[in-house]
Amino acid sequence: MKLGDPRKAYRIAQGAKVRLNEDDAADMSLCPEGGKNSTQGLFDSLRDRIQTLQKVLYAENKRRVLVIIQAMDTGGKDGCVKHVFSRVDPQGVNVKAFKKPTEDELAHDFLWRVHPHVPGNGEIVIFNRSHYEDIIAVRVKKLLPESVWKKRYQHVLDFERMLAEEGTTIVKLFLHISKDEQKRRLEKRLENPAKHWKFHVDDLADRKRWHDFTGAYEDLIERTSTDYAPWFVIPADRKWYRNLCVAKLFADTLEDLELNFPERDFDPSSIRIDD
Amino acid sequence: MKLGDPRKAYRIAQGAKVRLNEDDAADMSLCPEGGKNSTQGLFDSLRDRIQTLQKVLYAENKRRVLVIIQAMDTGGKDGCVKHVFSRVDPQGVNVKAFKKPTEDELAHDFLWRVHPHVPGNGEIVIFNRSHYEDIIAVRVKKLLPESVWKKRYQHVLDFERMLAEEGTTIVKLFLHISKDEQKRRLEKRLENPAKHWKFHVDDLADRKRWHDFTGAYEDLIERTSTDYAPWFVIPADRKWYRNLCVAKLFADTLEDLELNFPERDFDPSSIRIDD
Repeated sequence: MKLGDPRKAYRIAQGAKVRLNEDDAADMSLCPEGGKNSTQGLFDSLRDRIQTLQKVLYAENKRRVLVIIQAMDTGGKDGCVKHVFSRVDPQGVNVKAFKKPTEDELAHDFLWRVHPHVPGNGEIVIFNRSHYEDIIAVRVKKLLPESVWKKRYQHVLDFERMLAEEGTTIVKLFLHISKDEQKRRLEKRLENPAKHWKFHVDDLADRKRWHDFTGAYEDLIERTSTDYAPWFVIPADRKWYRNLCVAKLFADTLEDLELNFPERDFDPSSIRIDD
Repeated sequence: MKLGDPRKAYRIAQGAKVRLNEDDAADMSLCPEGGKNSTQGLFDSLRDRIQTLQKVLYAENKRRVLVIIQAMDTGGKDGCVKHVFSRVDPQGVNVKAFKKPTEDELAHDFLWRVHPHVPGNGEIVIFNRSHYEDIIAVRVKKLLPESVWKKRYQHVLDFERMLAEEGTTIVKLFLHISKDEQKRRLEKRLENPAKHWKFHVDDLADRKRWHDFTGAYEDLIERTSTDYAPWFVIPADRKWYRNLCVAKLFADTLEDLELNFPERDFDPSSIRIDD
């Protein structure tokens, strides 16, 4: 079973136009034969690779990895984190979920609540939502004047360039679902009592603004996909395919870092452990 | 396969005397038949229970769980975290490892660097080392006068009582290994190049103070095991047994919280998702 390269297929080149076509959300072109059932073994081996590479990243204690995940409601942010990263040593992965900003957070610049959570040496941090909400949600819901959120594109570019130049590898994922798929997922949440806690009546208001959100995301991704912090638009109507692409993309990203165990500062043969 | 109750067997009652007998480190009395090979299925089912209960904890978004892990070097803090918690949704578990305090941290009270990392609603946080280092290491290495570290027993008791009364369940684990077992583990680290990064020459100096550390831990556990934040001394010479006990203890702790999905604030039958 051979999987295509999601970093080629779904990367938004710097300056490229972005159109979030609903059909693309169900794409599975990197996985031509068999589909879901044939990919479990492949998915497991990708998770094993991630697990192994994370150990070296942690031991090396030099590089930092930041994954930013954005999506429409029900787009699969939580599920993606759980499936792709739940075999990794929890000590090496931190997930930071950004909710609606608090009063105190709003009393600061929009990056103030984000900065303390970026990864340190040897760490992987996953942002479940991020500073991008402070452009997207703010714009669509008209929470601040255009003169404020428009400047944030550049603030984000500057912030991410600084992080990258200081040693952080940044990967940004937009999990792309169609409006029909969102309907199916919202209905499922209503049907299943164990999923009621995930249902918020407010999400229906956001769904009514689907078109506005789509336009805002297109703009955002166009303006903030860079060589040092690229966006990938991952087809996410099929959960298994989304997980497979994200696992492959992440494993390859770690692989490219050419991680190594650190040089030792002692000679093992010269050391004797006393009783 | 029936496993005994580590919360009964290894809990240090408030006010009880503590003697860290080296023989006890190899105890496996809760697991009378078969030993290691017979317990894999049991361990997997405990991890499944933890995984399931964590989902409800997270959904409920009300209770907070803090696990504090202390041990001598090579005692298995990292391994225990990895094996017991690496099947849990990484979004619901944060691991905070406390290293040697920085200059800035030392310029504050000893709880200043700890407090920001305690769990919030629905969260599990694991402290790999903790504020207890600021008593243990400080005392044994004579980093501060006795008049300072002696008062910290009470500071810790007060801090943990406040957390507990505000809604945090606290479990404190001392992974108990013998001096012989530490020797074997240090030698293994020297033999295996993939483990050299875990070997620090400083650890040998700490090993020379084994007796002092043991006495300091006995004192510490005696003085800070309480009903609201009990210590458990887990036999840890056998890694599989240590993992099994910690998984059982943690699963039972979550079970006792009688977690529930939150009440919904809407009537599912009244909601229609528009196209």
